[in-house]
Amino acid sequence: MSHAERILMGPGPSNPYPEVTEAMVRPVVGHLDPGFLALLDETNDRLRTVWRTDNPLTFALSGTGSAGMEAAFVNVVNPGDVVVVGVNGAFGERMCDVARRCRAEVVRVEAPWGQPLDPEQVLAAHPNPAVIAVVHAETSTGVRNDVGCLSHGKGDALLVVDCVTSLGGIPVEIDAWDVDLAYSGTQKCLGVPPGLSPFTVSARAVERFVERPQSWYLDLSMIADYVSAGGARAYHHTAPISMVYALHAGLGVLVDEGLEASWERHAACGAMLHDGLEALGLELFAEAGHRLPELTSVRIPADRLPDGMDEAACRRALLDRYGIEIGGGLGPVAGQVWRIGLMGHTARLRNVALLLAVLGEMLDG
Amino acid sequence: MSHAERILMGPGPSNPYPEVTEAMVRPVVGHLDPGFLALLDETNDRLRTVWRTDNPLTFALSGTGSAGMEAAFVNVVNPGDVVVVGVNGAFGERMCDVARRCRAEVVRVEAPWGQPLDPEQVLAAHPNPAVIAVVHAETSTGVRNDVGCLSHGKGDALLVVDCVTSLGGIPVEIDAWDVDLAYSGTQKCLGVPPGLSPFTVSARAVERFVERPQSWYLDLSMIADYVSAGGARAYHHTAPISMVYALHAGLGVLVDEGLEASWERHAACGAMLHDGLEALGLELFAEAGHRLPELTSVRIPADRLPDGMDEAACRRALLDRYGIEIGGGLGPVAGQVWRIGLMGHTARLRNVALLLAVLGEMLDG
Repeated sequence: MSHAERILMGPGPSNPYPEVTEAMVRPVVGHLDPGFLALLDETNDRLRTVWRTDNPLTFALSGTGSAGMEAAFVNVVNPGDVVVVGVNGAFGERMCDVARRCRAEVVRVEAPWGQPLDPEQVLAAHPNPAVIAVVHAETSTGVRNDVGCLSHGKGDALLVVDCVTSLGGIPVEIDAWDVDLAYSGTQKCLGVPPGLSPFTVSARAVERFVERPQSWYLDLSMIADYVSAGGARAYHHTAPISMVYALHAGLGVLVDEGLEASWERHAACGAMLHDGLEALGLELFAEAGHRLPELTSVRIPADRLPDGMDEAACRRALLDRYGIEIGGGLGPVAGQVWRIGLMGHTARLRNVALLLAVLGEMLDG
Repeated sequence: MSHAERILMGPGPSNPYPEVTEAMVRPVVGHLDPGFLALLDETNDRLRTVWRTDNPLTFALSGTGSAGMEAAFVNVVNPGDVVVVGVNGAFGERMCDVARRCRAEVVRVEAPWGQPLDPEQVLAAHPNPAVIAVVHAETSTGVRNDVGCLSHGKGDALLVVDCVTSLGGIPVEIDAWDVDLAYSGTQKCLGVPPGLSPFTVSARAVERFVERPQSWYLDLSMIADYVSAGGARAYHHTAPISMVYALHAGLGVLVDEGLEASWERHAACGAMLHDGLEALGLELFAEAGHRLPELTSVRIPADRLPDGMDEAACRRALLDRYGIEIGGGLGPVAGQVWRIGLMGHTARLRNVALLLAVLGEMLDG
């Protein structure tokens, strides 16, 4: 079974950096091998650099970004706790679902899909929530929610932030923004295949861990005994060795390029795409001023699709003719928007130029 | 940072098959790419062959074997349900912990570490349990528990079996044994790096799924919508693409060799190791007749360790001098046994001969 090489311009996975692919084939060693533990420590140091944090408990969970979301709730939410969730897309909705499964009392603060949350509304939603949770980069809409301004009014609440599509692509400042728990995914702006969830926890959140989380697999106290440098290195579960090699290499590429340089590269690609789509007469979906450079949602021009092709057929034609993947819409905006990712190694001006060219060729008018 | 190539004769991970390593570097594609979905379907077909089942819901979870354990409980256990767990090692203990986190009433049926469970005792432990759970191959002791005889007396109970260290290495017969939920790990007898948990669910268990499992990430009803051939292919979480490539390739090696041939290879290696260790004057820990060929526990001969070296130093010397990893004991048998794995690509007579030679050289007397 063979695969064409794709340019992955959907909502993720993105194309891995070549150095990452090379790293995945390194010989597998044991999860307690001294050589592996040293590599794990270095990986976690690189994660601290990328998260902009000194949090000792910073590592990658053995699951995708959604496992990270679940870990962020099950470790700090007790039954009956009030959890304020900002909802302006599919991943805010998912947070509500996950929090309810922890038997939290969920207070929703909504904004229409395509528009950012109002931080003041989020802070005013409840006088004393246990947790305030927002998605930084809403992958379903391409909207950036403001996170930095939430810390000042959060009171005793723990601040949980979904950085799946933001980490490495736009500024994320865990310590400066006083974020308590944050998770990401490897397959977005870090340029690594999917499978791990970079994670960081403040000392304040560690003190608030529930006694026995309902998830054994995502029990951060137990995981900390293995992942922490200088800790007991107690076996919890077998670390996904090859994926840790991949993450280590991807973070190496990012640190070598420089975090700010990576943000600038993503910004330049996003700006070129946004301008180019508007020049083609297309309408961007996310509100101006809160558009993500790494994930762009654009309204599908129904009247300009080629004869006999619906939007899914157009995406399929891009895949079959050019080997280019872009994404469709989720939930209420399915069939209404396309989602175009420029993340990690995919965030190259060359890819933007190519996509604009083929879209211009495909659309009528 | 460089790694020596290791011969992984610990309790896992084992050495991956070369074909697996090659597969991991295939270009990443999207999780909804038609090419990937076809490969996913073929992977699940191969899993059905290896599990000896026709269960439609057969796939690999996006986590390690411990995630599989958790998924097996959270999807079928309601608060207050009686769960009978056979406990004769660390992984039976873990099952109790996981079941309690589902708020089950756990009924333990114990056997000493190193001895098998009594199936009659397991069946007689409670008149009407919701779930009966046993570990097939106890990785902490090298004991095989009898599973095939449990189906006849299980009544309405669902039978959950941990096959992390058995699948591919010794006979596992999901349909013939009437097992309802079973999980494994990629890094043992399947010869694939750690990171995924092969999983299979009977139709009877699907009907007993709880309404909303406490875990979103491991919610099998939602996952089924994505992994099932001919299903909605609804996005749940981003599949770990490269690891699925690896599993697909590993299962290909296994199916090409033949499942029975793989069992025979593991049996031959295990027999040679058991005989060789006894010929060296060492005492096997697991009870005769229930010894796993793929995972052997042997009592550490404290009086024959080289001067000034404890058992950990001996293992470290094997690693540093020969690049051979073997495992120490867990929990109550820490410091008392070594655990020697012969799993997947590691299960070769050559590796057995080498280990026996270096052990014989190292030990006094």
